[in-house]
Amino acid sequence: MSRRGEFKLISDVFAPLATGFDGALGLKDDAALLTPGSGAQYVTTVDAMVAGVHFIGDEPAARIGQKLLRVNLSDLAAMGAAPVGYLLTLALPVEIGDDWLANFAAGLHLDQQQFDICLMGGDTVSTPGPLTLTLTAIGSVPRGRSLQRNAAQPGDDLYVSGTLGDAALGLKAVQGELPVPLVDEDRAWFIERYQLPQPRLALGQSLIGLAHAAMDISDGLIADLGHMAVASEVSLRIEHAGLPLSTAARHVVDEVPDLIETVLTGGDDYELVFSAPEESRDQISALSAEMDIPLTCIGGVKPGQGVYLFDKSGEIVNLSKSGWTHF
Amino acid sequence: MSRRGEFKLISDVFAPLATGFDGALGLKDDAALLTPGSGAQYVTTVDAMVAGVHFIGDEPAARIGQKLLRVNLSDLAAMGAAPVGYLLTLALPVEIGDDWLANFAAGLHLDQQQFDICLMGGDTVSTPGPLTLTLTAIGSVPRGRSLQRNAAQPGDDLYVSGTLGDAALGLKAVQGELPVPLVDEDRAWFIERYQLPQPRLALGQSLIGLAHAAMDISDGLIADLGHMAVASEVSLRIEHAGLPLSTAARHVVDEVPDLIETVLTGGDDYELVFSAPEESRDQISALSAEMDIPLTCIGGVKPGQGVYLFDKSGEIVNLSKSGWTHF
Repeated sequence: MSRRGEFKLISDVFAPLATGFDGALGLKDDAALLTPGSGAQYVTTVDAMVAGVHFIGDEPAARIGQKLLRVNLSDLAAMGAAPVGYLLTLALPVEIGDDWLANFAAGLHLDQQQFDICLMGGDTVSTPGPLTLTLTAIGSVPRGRSLQRNAAQPGDDLYVSGTLGDAALGLKAVQGELPVPLVDEDRAWFIERYQLPQPRLALGQSLIGLAHAAMDISDGLIADLGHMAVASEVSLRIEHAGLPLSTAARHVVDEVPDLIETVLTGGDDYELVFSAPEESRDQISALSAEMDIPLTCIGGVKPGQGVYLFDKSGEIVNLSKSGWTHF
Repeated sequence: MSRRGEFKLISDVFAPLATGFDGALGLKDDAALLTPGSGAQYVTTVDAMVAGVHFIGDEPAARIGQKLLRVNLSDLAAMGAAPVGYLLTLALPVEIGDDWLANFAAGLHLDQQQFDICLMGGDTVSTPGPLTLTLTAIGSVPRGRSLQRNAAQPGDDLYVSGTLGDAALGLKAVQGELPVPLVDEDRAWFIERYQLPQPRLALGQSLIGLAHAAMDISDGLIADLGHMAVASEVSLRIEHAGLPLSTAARHVVDEVPDLIETVLTGGDDYELVFSAPEESRDQISALSAEMDIPLTCIGGVKPGQGVYLFDKSGEIVNLSKSGWTHF
């Protein structure tokens, strides 16, 4: 992409995504300006996606844009933050043309409206390698109130939002690696969950004051609970029987029980996992109903360290270091 | 790079760069926290560098880290901002090993101390393509006081900091494309200016209240003045005789006069160009002496549009759209 191409790309494709945010300065200055509200802290996060590594490459460009934005919004959600703006960096190989970029921007535009966030700035460079996308998201949280993963306390209940494992099963479905025939409805559900995660922004903000620790599930439930256990210096105990599965996931796990391993260790869920004290139970139940998001108690927090999974008969299931060995 | 590799990389190599900033949360949480000072605005910018495109790839890793940070700091400088923190994204090919990463981090560490900035967060991913580095820098500026490129006014003087063209001549020297034999001292100067730009942070902050418009020179003086002229809706007139060249650049331009084209259109200067009213002249002169940075008046701002270059006899030099044609 020539330099001239870059300026035209910015003015034609990306400047329209920045019109809602004065501090973006029309994407024409050296940097963007953010004016803090009183009593606010900013939350910043960055995630990169590489074609062939983080997405297959033949997904619709609009969905790639949406996923890139949403995985970052999920990090804001995990902190209890409201979206403010984002910076976008594209490393473009020559085969990425104007049509692809227009569709990519259309996906961002759609999600900007849905999640109330605006492009603030960015950089566009050429690369001889694969398409590489980097997005920095900035959110705002009431000062001193952000949710963190280090605040789980013994006695807390442990919850997850939504259902587990759909995205990991969706990736397997897309790659033709799911050892189960799928009805069309289940296939569509898995693929949508893989390509279009739902950042739990409203939920995250509502959990301030109700939850102790929170984080999003991006590396898989078991691995991410491991991070929470270490950060909070507690042990986390979850019960197999309580894990929330979608109807589609229930279908395939009933057919091939070993797929529960994919559900528990696969990535890309982008649901929230959080701990909350017993006295929050009624409010969490009310929140679940009000937001129409399943919030399922999957276990609890105890003194000690590590993550323990219990089967239906109350026996501990072995978890290997890299995930687990057998269910 | 396996996931396990990523966590170890973060804890061993990057977490030590984040110890000076509480809001980085030890690089262990979903996002970083920024607590605004009262009366401050934040300034955010992002720049990416791709091996083989933005650097040759065999530069010392420490210098690549320093340059990545400094090109972003230069954008903060151009807005008059003081550095606060940065987020770092690495897309790593398999050939990048632990030694390279340790040296890269050592370069960042050195510059963190020099420029008073701290790592806040980031992402590390693997790529089958070239090493791709993305850095988002955040700075702070007194509310409503940031320098912007759209504020040049007819009657202003036009200044640049430092000397022009050294980095572009350094790139040519590294690539063996400089048609002049170089003495060792000049070669070392050019290469240092190419690999280690000096972000003019203290200068940028001092220009608040003195300068009208400001920006950094990254695309080449002529192209960047074009951006300022458009943004400010003015014409900019510069005089060939007044352009500040280093001793080394003067040597090679005296040998091959056409190299002045490289000086004026080559990129990577990372000096500041700014406009200031006549009444700021004495203070700018004092600032130059106090900071030991040349601040050279290269021309002025007039009504109209476009960028005009005048030769020693007062004749206009033709500038082509892509730079210029003949000097």
